[in-house]
Amino acid sequence: MNLLSVKRILVGKPIPTDQACHECLDKPTALAVLSSDALSSVAYATQEILLVLVAVGTAARWWSLPIAGAIALLLFIVISSYRQTIQAYPKGGGAYIVAKDNLGQYPGLVAAAALLTDYILTVSVSVAAGVEALSSAFPQLLAFEVPIGVVMVALITWANLRGVKESGRLFSVPTFLFIGLIALLVAVGFIKAAVVGVPPGEAFIHPTTGSETLSLFLILRAFASGCTALTGVEAISDGVPVFRPPEARNARITLTWMGVILGSMFLGITGLCYLYGAVPKAEETVVSQVARQVFGTQPPFSLLYYAVQFATALILVLAANTAFSDFPRLSFFLARDGFIPRQYANRGDRLAFSNGILTLGLFSSALIVIFQGDVNRIIPLYAIGVFTSFTLSQTGMVVRWWRRREPGWVRSIALNGLGAFATALVLVVVAVTKFATGAWAILVLIPALVWLFTRIKVHYSDVASQLSLDHSQYVPRRLKQKVVIPVGGIHRGILQALDYARSISDDATAVYVDIDTQSTEAFIERWGKWTDVPLVVVPSPTRSILEPLLDYFNAVESTCQDSVMTVIVPTFVTAKWWQNLLHNQTAFLIKSALLLQRRKVVVSVRFYLDR
Amino acid sequence: MNLLSVKRILVGKPIPTDQACHECLDKPTALAVLSSDALSSVAYATQEILLVLVAVGTAARWWSLPIAGAIALLLFIVISSYRQTIQAYPKGGGAYIVAKDNLGQYPGLVAAAALLTDYILTVSVSVAAGVEALSSAFPQLLAFEVPIGVVMVALITWANLRGVKESGRLFSVPTFLFIGLIALLVAVGFIKAAVVGVPPGEAFIHPTTGSETLSLFLILRAFASGCTALTGVEAISDGVPVFRPPEARNARITLTWMGVILGSMFLGITGLCYLYGAVPKAEETVVSQVARQVFGTQPPFSLLYYAVQFATALILVLAANTAFSDFPRLSFFLARDGFIPRQYANRGDRLAFSNGILTLGLFSSALIVIFQGDVNRIIPLYAIGVFTSFTLSQTGMVVRWWRRREPGWVRSIALNGLGAFATALVLVVVAVTKFATGAWAILVLIPALVWLFTRIKVHYSDVASQLSLDHSQYVPRRLKQKVVIPVGGIHRGILQALDYARSISDDATAVYVDIDTQSTEAFIERWGKWTDVPLVVVPSPTRSILEPLLDYFNAVESTCQDSVMTVIVPTFVTAKWWQNLLHNQTAFLIKSALLLQRRKVVVSVRFYLDR
Repeated sequence: MNLLSVKRILVGKPIPTDQACHECLDKPTALAVLSSDALSSVAYATQEILLVLVAVGTAARWWSLPIAGAIALLLFIVISSYRQTIQAYPKGGGAYIVAKDNLGQYPGLVAAAALLTDYILTVSVSVAAGVEALSSAFPQLLAFEVPIGVVMVALITWANLRGVKESGRLFSVPTFLFIGLIALLVAVGFIKAAVVGVPPGEAFIHPTTGSETLSLFLILRAFASGCTALTGVEAISDGVPVFRPPEARNARITLTWMGVILGSMFLGITGLCYLYGAVPKAEETVVSQVARQVFGTQPPFSLLYYAVQFATALILVLAANTAFSDFPRLSFFLARDGFIPRQYANRGDRLAFSNGILTLGLFSSALIVIFQGDVNRIIPLYAIGVFTSFTLSQTGMVVRWWRRREPGWVRSIALNGLGAFATALVLVVVAVTKFATGAWAILVLIPALVWLFTRIKVHYSDVASQLSLDHSQYVPRRLKQKVVIPVGGIHRGILQALDYARSISDDATAVYVDIDTQSTEAFIERWGKWTDVPLVVVPSPTRSILEPLLDYFNAVESTCQDSVMTVIVPTFVTAKWWQNLLHNQTAFLIKSALLLQRRKVVVSVRFYLDR
Repeated sequence: MNLLSVKRILVGKPIPTDQACHECLDKPTALAVLSSDALSSVAYATQEILLVLVAVGTAARWWSLPIAGAIALLLFIVISSYRQTIQAYPKGGGAYIVAKDNLGQYPGLVAAAALLTDYILTVSVSVAAGVEALSSAFPQLLAFEVPIGVVMVALITWANLRGVKESGRLFSVPTFLFIGLIALLVAVGFIKAAVVGVPPGEAFIHPTTGSETLSLFLILRAFASGCTALTGVEAISDGVPVFRPPEARNARITLTWMGVILGSMFLGITGLCYLYGAVPKAEETVVSQVARQVFGTQPPFSLLYYAVQFATALILVLAANTAFSDFPRLSFFLARDGFIPRQYANRGDRLAFSNGILTLGLFSSALIVIFQGDVNRIIPLYAIGVFTSFTLSQTGMVVRWWRRREPGWVRSIALNGLGAFATALVLVVVAVTKFATGAWAILVLIPALVWLFTRIKVHYSDVASQLSLDHSQYVPRRLKQKVVIPVGGIHRGILQALDYARSISDDATAVYVDIDTQSTEAFIERWGKWTDVPLVVVPSPTRSILEPLLDYFNAVESTCQDSVMTVIVPTFVTAKWWQNLLHNQTAFLIKSALLLQRRKVVVSVRFYLDR
């Protein structure tokens, strides 16, 4: 059982089921644990806006300010909307559940498909952005971004397979560190600009004019890119049960706090980038550029710069890590409902949903490799899934309020309706403006996944009905055995198989294919010396081994009324796998043919070779 | 049985054993059938000599004449030597048999390894040269040389799998056509040169000076390249039994004739190439250049040019085809002696040694792909194997004459000794001069193959002794059955497995792993409703399915004294292969674990799903 030992070393000892406990979190810790995905997006959202604008020229950077304002407004709407979801789903209202409950199966599956792709992209984008934060500070790492990203994903996957306990206290450190350092950066940055003045930034040293012209489409595209700042805000409403009671109330307060912090950080960073003239560059992020200018390059203040980059990388890894609990949890729901393979519903012996974790790790590292770890190239794929699930979830809430019409339903519908409308609008903007640069792939993928989900569901239903015992008149039967043993010689392996045949039936016959008269005669003589199991010799004018045997099996089976035929195939097991290549594959051929003939029972009696 | 039907369509109906007849050939037909490999080498041998020489400059072409003379002398020696082999081995004296008989196992295996690589290279070189002959005439084909070559090999492989009857009459057409056309080319070429004068050839229009200097090493290298003209001369001595009686006498006469024809054609072509100033070019062979000049480009005489190219391509394909009988035959001998996998000793149902044919087809087309169908790049690998087997075969003959000392043994030893010495010398020359350009690979491969042969032989001996019934005290045993059926639910598939279990034993127990108390209780109740087979529930605090089951199997087996435990694994067979991915692989895991635990018997009771 070597494989098992390897697994133990890698993954650790099994954890008994009863250790699956909930630890309830106070508000600040819950904020830290559930917001890393949302907050970390300030590390790349501003840069994505600027990237679109500087295609027109560095002068167009001004537009980043109103765009950031619009995104902050959108954030306010979405947060207000999700506060309602928390109230309605105190056990956690993910988009799949909300959409399925209120809109039906297909919208639910669309939300699920959107979320699955979204989680994969969260991991890819966060890890890639984390690596970029590090390589901005240490340009020596630039050449190794892809392998570093893949190793990071592998480490996170491994940690989750072992079953990371989302130990609140430990996990809240990077989040608070990040919030604190960004707050310091923004404060020092604005004060320094007001008091000392701004050191010359990239946009002032190298002003450029690009090939594109400023158009509404381009501004919408910049807005669509910036909307990645909203990714992850749904996490708190998905995770209500981890709060201390009263869960819903605490979650709502935390969500509001999260919105305020995220909005301030995003607006602050965007303002600083404008002030300090940061321009997206392949080798350094805009946050890094700003932090370098604000804190300077002289110790001890430059240490603050490195701290910002480290904290950014850390919170991004943490954000990737949250997808590693979200993706397997959603997979579990989908598998339980029969829309994806059942294996995703199994908890591994460390209590983790190992298959979901492995799938997420594989796909997200594949994306990092395909897009060469370039955040700018992955981002266009990202927002579609997020806003699809936002829209479906908010629309589901609208339908829910309408159906129930509980006190205050008008206000609730208004809030969620606004949320649904705003996110749907953004979805259209993102789909249209980012279509050519990658959004089309997601627009193809989501329906394809939904189709796959329904096909899988149909298959499981088919199997269940074929296996079902409803309306079945089962009467246990006492069958007799007719045993047939194809033999090609007589040796220890064969004698062992004959003993086994006799142990299951008194009616055992060996069958030998006659290819060459001389050897057959010698064989018959030898057979008689060693055993009294009857031997049937079948002729083979064409030297085929298989066909005469199959004909004989059919002939025997046609005589079975109250009995069942068992074919016993004596099989070698060689000591080393490659030695298998050295043996006639007759046993394998016979077994394959019996499978193709849809025979119910084939017995391998194995003889293990030591050398 | 769909696969079988496909095979029938591709390969044809089985051929009964008694149709394996010998048709004996008269001398001219035998010459045609057995000499295609040897004669076809004039299509490339001269070109290979010139290729080395023109690296010095077109003026160095003169050296091709004495080199061709030396090769003709070598041919005379080798032919004289093989005439002796025919006399001593009237049943066919291949190098493997002659070397094994007279020199022992290892020299025999070296000869075998040399021959196997040689046959593969024969196919690659012949097909590549055949394609070059065609694309010299039709330059449009130049871009498709590799796919054309691979398709040709595939067609030859396919024809041989169907079992080509080496119908002498049909197969002698290309050989005689080639001999006739080359004779005509040489005759017309020399007459035209003497009477009309020589039209300006490549070497006269574009005289060049290369970077290399004329040295003994370079001349020896040109000689080594030209020695590929000798490949295939052993075919007649390998195939003595196909001659009409008196076989040996007829074979010796035919061999002499073949030597005379091959020598004349080779000297004639080399002379023409010199006279007409042919220089190796990537897009046209030297034979094609000469034929174009001799026959002109105006119809009707240009038709003769195309005829030469077609006949060349045809005889080269025929040469490749002969390797398809030689390789499988040698594989058969090696497999029968236990040096390569036994499968090579099986005749397919079309009487062909299918595995050998497929192996040859695969390796030779791989070489064509790797070397981009370029004869010049494959040739350096070629001659090593040929001259190794020549040397071992002739040395074997010397030892044989010495051991027997029959009348005339001194003359026989002198002839074969000269042959052995000359071919050994050439072997050294080839190995040294071609070492860097590829010969090293063969010099590594041959010992590696010999090592592999001996390892395989050791394995087969090990297996035979483990299975042997010698000194074995076998007493048939009457064992009782204890049947254990792991179950995860109750449905039609399970009930079918229970019926089967009852049919082989009265002592059958189902075993269920308790992962979750609630479902287990529901299951126990359901179980009792449907069957009275006893149910054992084993706990699994870590939710592992496998470990508690394996523990239980071990516990049951430890109570077996006069009985044997059988594990029956109820298994689904899905209607489509991909549906397998959708089912828990528990059955597969259990079977794998039982294999690792070296259990002798596992029974799959299959439930076939229709949808």
